[in-house]
Amino acid sequence: MAGDTKILELAKVDLHDPVLIQGLPGLGYVGKVAVDYFIEKLHPKKYAELYSGYLLFPDGNLGINIFEDGTYSLPRYEFYAFSEKSPNLVFLTGDAQPSVTGQYEVATTVLDYVLKQNCKTVFTMGGYGTRSQGDVGSVYCVDGSGFLGDQLTKHGAKLAKGGAVTGAAGVILGIGRQRGLDCAGLLGATTGVYPDLEAARAVIHLLADLLHMPLDLKDLDREVEDMRKKVEKIKRAEVEELKEELGAEGEGKDRYIT
Amino acid sequence: MAGDTKILELAKVDLHDPVLIQGLPGLGYVGKVAVDYFIEKLHPKKYAELYSGYLLFPDGNLGINIFEDGTYSLPRYEFYAFSEKSPNLVFLTGDAQPSVTGQYEVATTVLDYVLKQNCKTVFTMGGYGTRSQGDVGSVYCVDGSGFLGDQLTKHGAKLAKGGAVTGAAGVILGIGRQRGLDCAGLLGATTGVYPDLEAARAVIHLLADLLHMPLDLKDLDREVEDMRKKVEKIKRAEVEELKEELGAEGEGKDRYIT
Amino acid sequence: MAGDTKILELAKVDLHDPVLIQGLPGLGYVGKVAVDYFIEKLHPKKYAELYSGYLLFPDGNLGINIFEDGTYSLPRYEFYAFSEKSPNLVFLTGDAQPSVTGQYEVATTVLDYVLKQNCKTVFTMGGYGTRSQGDVGSVYCVDGSGFLGDQLTKHGAKLAKGGAVTGAAGVILGIGRQRGLDCAGLLGATTGVYPDLEAARAVIHLLADLLHMPLDLKDLDREVEDMRKKVEKIKRAEVEELKEELGAEGEGKDRYIT
Amino acid sequence: MAGDTKILELAKVDLHDPVLIQGLPGLGYVGKVAVDYFIEKLHPKKYAELYSGYLLFPDGNLGINIFEDGTYSLPRYEFYAFSEKSPNLVFLTGDAQPSVTGQYEVATTVLDYVLKQNCKTVFTMGGYGTRSQGDVGSVYCVDGSGFLGDQLTKHGAKLAKGGAVTGAAGVILGIGRQRGLDCAGLLGATTGVYPDLEAARAVIHLLADLLHMPLDLKDLDREVEDMRKKVEKIKRAEVEELKEELGAEGEGKDRYIT
Repeated sequence: MAGDTKILELAKVDLHDPVLIQGLPGLGYVGKVAVDYFIEKLHPKKYAELYSGYLLFPDGNLGINIFEDGTYSLPRYEFYAFSEKSPNLVFLTGDAQPSVTGQYEVATTVLDYVLKQNCKTVFTMGGYGTRSQGDVGSVYCVDGSGFLGDQLTKHGAKLAKGGAVTGAAGVILGIGRQRGLDCAGLLGATTGVYPDLEAARAVIHLLADLLHMPLDLKDLDREVEDMRKKVEKIKRAEVEELKEELGAEGEGKDRYIT
Repeated sequence: MAGDTKILELAKVDLHDPVLIQGLPGLGYVGKVAVDYFIEKLHPKKYAELYSGYLLFPDGNLGINIFEDGTYSLPRYEFYAFSEKSPNLVFLTGDAQPSVTGQYEVATTVLDYVLKQNCKTVFTMGGYGTRSQGDVGSVYCVDGSGFLGDQLTKHGAKLAKGGAVTGAAGVILGIGRQRGLDCAGLLGATTGVYPDLEAARAVIHLLADLLHMPLDLKDLDREVEDMRKKVEKIKRAEVEELKEELGAEGEGKDRYIT
Repeated sequence: MAGDTKILELAKVDLHDPVLIQGLPGLGYVGKVAVDYFIEKLHPKKYAELYSGYLLFPDGNLGINIFEDGTYSLPRYEFYAFSEKSPNLVFLTGDAQPSVTGQYEVATTVLDYVLKQNCKTVFTMGGYGTRSQGDVGSVYCVDGSGFLGDQLTKHGAKLAKGGAVTGAAGVILGIGRQRGLDCAGLLGATTGVYPDLEAARAVIHLLADLLHMPLDLKDLDREVEDMRKKVEKIKRAEVEELKEELGAEGEGKDRYIT
Repeated sequence: MAGDTKILELAKVDLHDPVLIQGLPGLGYVGKVAVDYFIEKLHPKKYAELYSGYLLFPDGNLGINIFEDGTYSLPRYEFYAFSEKSPNLVFLTGDAQPSVTGQYEVATTVLDYVLKQNCKTVFTMGGYGTRSQGDVGSVYCVDGSGFLGDQLTKHGAKLAKGGAVTGAAGVILGIGRQRGLDCAGLLGATTGVYPDLEAARAVIHLLADLLHMPLDLKDLDREVEDMRKKVEKIKRAEVEELKEELGAEGEGKDRYIT
């Protein structure tokens, strides 16, 4: 394909009619935070990676991210399988969105792959721009299936009635529907703070509930509080780093190489 | 193809040497308003959709548009068939123009498709930039057929003698001519107001007349007046919305999600 | 091919080892003015057109140019054959350059086509940026053949010793050389005035001389003078048009339609 | 392929499990200076060139570079073989980086080619951005092999623990690792001066040492000093040229043609 998009299979998994749940970097980081939470708590098995010349750094360049142990990777999607309970789940996350040119190719590659695993349902999680702080905690939904919208609104979601879902979250819903998959989007209202943990919490609650995930959500409030503290700590550290910048000698960490 | 452009056929239609009439978003929205008018009045049957990774939102992003009922779609072209009178007509409209990169691929896909339905004639409708308000109401034409220009000028059009037709309206005329189709463009003079209902009315009159469409154009003046009122109402509503913006809580409608 | 580049053959021509001479819009319009002069004087036969989704308007858009008679065309290259004298000549001109993305595809398509006509030699004509008015009238050359440079310097050209030839003029020399063709570029020194008739005259003289074209160059000085007057007339007309702009009613000529 | 990327083989070479060493223009010109040094000192045999529509000039245009003898070339990569000692080495350099769109295609073409020569190991050399002048002389490394990092740190490199390697240096490491090659990057800390000879010297020392290159590095200090003088001379000459610019007549050297 034009963008050299390909799947690298790491392990064979035995999935029964799995539900695909996608969360990628985007508005308020809502989808990414939510999917990372599910992966941390449910310990699904990583079984595949997707690479593409269309998965770029946020600045539009291409290259490798360096990890703490000195290893590295090109930007990628990761597929995780959870088959301990019904419905089986496939979590899809990644560290980049495709460029506009590559959205169709990447979404098509993902759907071709999960269709081979007999996937029939797709949920994407993302943010829904609001200007009102009071609306944060609401989850809006869009429905390409004819019945998922009803289920979602019964679980507390509001039906979106206009606007658009841009980026990978929208494109996979659009192409998935054409392929005959039952598709729905869960969009946490966010003022765009980064990351918006309140918005992510609302999405997590709703989807965990709907799909009967074996999660103890009593702890979620405390965990969101922990996440918030970590984020604040990182932000403080960044300020300190800026202060130390002149005169201090670096240590080969977190600098940008070109 | 590079942009994953494909036609989704929704119904079989029986068309005899149909005339293709294209109206897409563009200068003054002239072509889009005109084709929407024909579709509303003639009740043609929607029989196909075209999807493409090159059909982008106006801001250059890709994603899905959300409808009032919470369903959604990727940007698309729509084909409507009118076979009750001769000549049979195919109306082609859409909610987006292809990106520059995709213009050839999308126009070629459209022409390949209508050629299979034995289409021999193509009209595109669009706007023609003028700086003079007094010129609004004029329709300029370009002619790739050798005889359609004569017919159009007999019906009151002026022959364009220079300049260019950019975008999908121009490209389909250019490629259509190479394919041996009789092609002409009808371009309503517009100062670029959005939407330019006067310009659209002039184009509607001329093409309905030329192709003997079973339309009662006596009502057109009143209808244009109605459209104008609707547009003004929407514009007023947008101003109100801007006023309410701070402090007011939204309702999941018409907001832009990313 | 990705950009839908294709040749439309209009007539069969009988050419013997023709020399390809390319002149396209570019710096100072040198190459385009020169090739148009040869076409006007030698009356070669137009036998093919090249169309491509990569041939864009100068503003980066795609569409059709409208001619004085109300007909139109997509941007294109044109091939003209001159077979009355030896060496036979193919003149290649056009109203656009390919976008950066399309340079390889378009140049490759041109070379594939003329190689089928047994072409063995390629000259491109273009401008060579200089800051010194005194250098205008010089022709610089680059040589990919091993011997054309010698011939050109014997006819008065200076060997270029650095810099670059950007755009279609350069790319066809680069790919032509890889294909085993004898290639050379003739670059008229220009301060970038548009169009630079002095620079074009120098290139015309040198190439007509080298290839023994049956042209009476005694008239060239007068003709350049005529061209200069035409250009000045057009420029004055443009100023007049600007003056008349407010209040005056247009006539469907030379306006830009979108 | 989409970008017409292809290898032009100039000579057959007999290589045994060669190590690929890539140095291209980039941050501080570190990789390019280092690979040019190896090529100058070891006299490897040039055996192949890579051409691609994605290898652009730094300004984003495409064309040909003119050499001192009036010949020219499209931007290209060059492959040099050194088979006199073990391990055999392939040096890869060039005068351009691929555009973002072409990074995957070009890196894949390079790896396909050297894999046919039984290459099992890839080193890329580049710059590592630091704000501290005191850090210049350090070499950071990233390791995709599981053991090259250890070897490099034993030879004095520091393990990079974050950040990114953008451009061709990063992409070939990313794709090389997926292909099962042992890959590592050597990144000389640089404040971005152009060219950063100190940073290049540190990388040269480390890699020559690691791979037992038959080089007398005692001379390297003097040679770096010589290079520095040459660079300063060129910079002074550029200043002089700027001074002479007005009124002086050029000589067809080093000017940019469009």
